[in-house]
Amino acid sequence: MTEAIEFYFDFSSPYSYLASELIDALAAKYGRRVKWRPMMLGAAFQKAGTVPLVQVPLKGDYSLRDFDRSARFLGVPFKFPAKFPAVTLAAARAYYWLHDRDCMQARAFAHAVFRAYWQDGRDIAELAVVRDIAAGLGIDRDALAEAVATPEIKQRLKAESDAAVARGMFGAPYIIVDGEPFWGADRLPQIEKWLATGGF
Amino acid sequence: MTEAIEFYFDFSSPYSYLASELIDALAAKYGRRVKWRPMMLGAAFQKAGTVPLVQVPLKGDYSLRDFDRSARFLGVPFKFPAKFPAVTLAAARAYYWLHDRDCMQARAFAHAVFRAYWQDGRDIAELAVVRDIAAGLGIDRDALAEAVATPEIKQRLKAESDAAVARGMFGAPYIIVDGEPFWGADRLPQIEKWLATGGF
Repeated sequence: MTEAIEFYFDFSSPYSYLASELIDALAAKYGRRVKWRPMMLGAAFQKAGTVPLVQVPLKGDYSLRDFDRSARFLGVPFKFPAKFPAVTLAAARAYYWLHDRDCMQARAFAHAVFRAYWQDGRDIAELAVVRDIAAGLGIDRDALAEAVATPEIKQRLKAESDAAVARGMFGAPYIIVDGEPFWGADRLPQIEKWLATGGF
Repeated sequence: MTEAIEFYFDFSSPYSYLASELIDALAAKYGRRVKWRPMMLGAAFQKAGTVPLVQVPLKGDYSLRDFDRSARFLGVPFKFPAKFPAVTLAAARAYYWLHDRDCMQARAFAHAVFRAYWQDGRDIAELAVVRDIAAGLGIDRDALAEAVATPEIKQRLKAESDAAVARGMFGAPYIIVDGEPFWGADRLPQIEKWLATGGF
């Protein structure tokens, strides 16, 4: 099968960042490509009636430890940002604007946003920071600011978020392979087995 | 280091069952032993303010799929029981009663309880079923019934459950290696790396 793997994520999700550093290479190993789909995780939490992990008693403390340890386990650079969680509207809208113009540039931008937040602790909730990240990739910062303020791009992100939730997403990353949903960076080994065997 | 690995679980937890089938062999590979500690997961949920996974919208549906798939991934026989969740007071109390007499017999009993529920769908919430499982291992069914009704064994289980929560447990399985907590059967690969490298 050659259907693309769908990778739903929020730039503010640490396990999404970990998956983002590994998923393209994993897919390529099995001749597959990945559609990256940033969305607003808050929409999924609202539907599931849940709250961000770090706000849950006991689980929150454990999670902070698990983020770091999982990053070391996977060999991915990681530093928990001072400002967390971040509202990632501007970054996600910019992604879709770029994606419709140049999907490779959008991929580079998505990596840059994830790394700015999860390696360098930059405040990706700020439009100015998102514009700086884009400018570093040669993207016009004024065109970006204009684009993310349009009703069309706002609606686009909302539609993508709604679609993710409609497909069952309740947490991030949420990765769909041949119709089979996998939740969490810790499901990458199951995804690999799925790709290698055509389902198990 | 030769400190025992602590394996906190509830017989009613599917991911605990999956871990139970693998953890002793994993520990033995690195010359380590495992202390099995059944507890009442409800005490942890209460402290964390959470509810059983399958009751959460979206996440619940996903979880049912993930239980099965994770079992296939790990090569462990699995069949979701008709009655779920089960109140596992009798089984957990019986475990501690046995443990204080013969810890190997307690281990065999714990495996038998897990398999009765997660392979054969027997209602382990019923004392009669727990007594039958024990009798199948040559354990005196009347002595068991008498033992699990004593204030001492009730207090013992409560103390073990409280201790688990005091150590940060919020979900099951919760596995502590050299003071490092790991939550979930999906953390077994991290536990293996920890054992192989002495921490990472």
